[in-house]
Amino acid sequence: MAAKSKILVLGGTGYIGKFIVKASTEAEHPTFVLIRENTVSHPEKSKLIETFKASGVTLLYGDLHDHESLVKALKEVDVVISTLGGQQIDDQVKLIAAIKEAGNIKRFLPSEFGLDVDRHNAVEPVVSFLAKKVNIRRATEAEGIPYTYICSNAFAGYFLPTLGQQNVTAPPRDKVTILGDGNVEAVFVSEEDVGTYTIKAVDDPRTLNKTLYLRPPANVLTFNQLVSLWENKIKNTLEKVYIPEDQLLKIIQESPFPANLMLALGYSMLVKGDCTNYEIEASFGVEGSELYPEVNYTTVDDYLNAFI
Amino acid sequence: MAAKSKILVLGGTGYIGKFIVKASTEAEHPTFVLIRENTVSHPEKSKLIETFKASGVTLLYGDLHDHESLVKALKEVDVVISTLGGQQIDDQVKLIAAIKEAGNIKRFLPSEFGLDVDRHNAVEPVVSFLAKKVNIRRATEAEGIPYTYICSNAFAGYFLPTLGQQNVTAPPRDKVTILGDGNVEAVFVSEEDVGTYTIKAVDDPRTLNKTLYLRPPANVLTFNQLVSLWENKIKNTLEKVYIPEDQLLKIIQESPFPANLMLALGYSMLVKGDCTNYEIEASFGVEGSELYPEVNYTTVDDYLNAFI
Repeated sequence: MAAKSKILVLGGTGYIGKFIVKASTEAEHPTFVLIRENTVSHPEKSKLIETFKASGVTLLYGDLHDHESLVKALKEVDVVISTLGGQQIDDQVKLIAAIKEAGNIKRFLPSEFGLDVDRHNAVEPVVSFLAKKVNIRRATEAEGIPYTYICSNAFAGYFLPTLGQQNVTAPPRDKVTILGDGNVEAVFVSEEDVGTYTIKAVDDPRTLNKTLYLRPPANVLTFNQLVSLWENKIKNTLEKVYIPEDQLLKIIQESPFPANLMLALGYSMLVKGDCTNYEIEASFGVEGSELYPEVNYTTVDDYLNAFI
Repeated sequence: MAAKSKILVLGGTGYIGKFIVKASTEAEHPTFVLIRENTVSHPEKSKLIETFKASGVTLLYGDLHDHESLVKALKEVDVVISTLGGQQIDDQVKLIAAIKEAGNIKRFLPSEFGLDVDRHNAVEPVVSFLAKKVNIRRATEAEGIPYTYICSNAFAGYFLPTLGQQNVTAPPRDKVTILGDGNVEAVFVSEEDVGTYTIKAVDDPRTLNKTLYLRPPANVLTFNQLVSLWENKIKNTLEKVYIPEDQLLKIIQESPFPANLMLALGYSMLVKGDCTNYEIEASFGVEGSELYPEVNYTTVDDYLNAFI
């Protein structure tokens, strides 16, 4: 078996990045994280960086906006995973230029980790947000860089502890707000599992120039099923407040940024069913739990048990 | 008195844009709105466009990404107000290029309508978000385009009906979440007043190449004062849940985009006091209620009466 490829993560201290880094070291890939000089002194991030060091991560100092440092970092590795945040999607054109110059990158995973940006029924401002990711896909393809796109759907760790109710830190016990009629299927995947599946994909020829979708069967649920699952666990019935589609569209239209972005993501995922409303065809994609049946993923059912 | 300047609004059907358009027509400026062909068929926006037509607005069909149509539209007017959304801040470089080519624009107001992006204590991802607006400021100045920046602070219509509590449509009557200790001052300005002050500024030499800050005295309140005002109105005491600064920083760090952006905006505004924690100096700015004492602005006190 070939040596494990060397992986560089950009955005490694971010929300999903830290799970990718963890999965990479656990799978014994030589793992590199690009960080800026000033990140080390950031109170929350410095703890994370200590954890990285303890698990054998090599820190590379550099910056997306410093072409030379970027090319130098790329030359150390085989695979690049970008988990740059929502404000830095466009900046990945600089990463693409550096990958092109370095010339040695075997696989590039741009920052995705959400819905399929080429297949959705979103409204603004989500359309513009997803369009930025589309541009990065097209730029990657135009440069002939080998890629994998990860469509991991909804983050369980963000979504499940609150059932999508904002400003709370545990699922509701009295009342729940449901976007639309609650009858379309969404997919909830734990951040640890997003990391595990992503790292499995980087050296896999079956994911080369394809999209890896995460739709583990036990985690494909309608919102009503999710609420019902929770109600069974707490042995209580919640009051349900439904926000119909037309009302939600009006609220989105009347909310400022970034509240409108958050609500419009809910619209796409929970009202239009953009996690699940298309078939994954072999020509463009593969499904993670089919490809890697050995992964013992965390089910939504198990996930919710932590909050009873 | 000189004829009223002709005003073009980009993003006129958006959250704050529609209030700018309304203020412009009410002040009898010849008012133009740039819209894309497909906006007319948008269910929510088509109603708004009918309202525009009825109030004498001239619709110009064009697109930010179509340089020719943009230059043509600019040549019809004297003043450009951009109210483009949070996903389109960067795209304003195209507008700047077109203004430069058109050569006839007497005043440009880029999309701001929030905190002073040059004076803040924000954390990521807000730092990156505000940096985009900083870039547009610097590009405007570098091209020698006459400008006014509008720092209107918090939108009353977004903030007050819920006291910043998410997923609710009226202020809380039992429990309220407070970021930090609730003792720093923020500023809440109604969207109608943002429109009125903005339109007053466009032909005013005192706002040329300056920032117009909106800090109407009655609307500068700490969060605790805001809650207390509401409690007096409903004759009830709310349960207060305080989220200390270090805990909020941790939650921001552990939340995905765009929830982290929303929380980090709250951190900047309500914990660090970025609406009010600097003096407005004559060298760079003027305050709206001082400059235009004739504006009978909506006070927070009055605003909240609608929700009792």
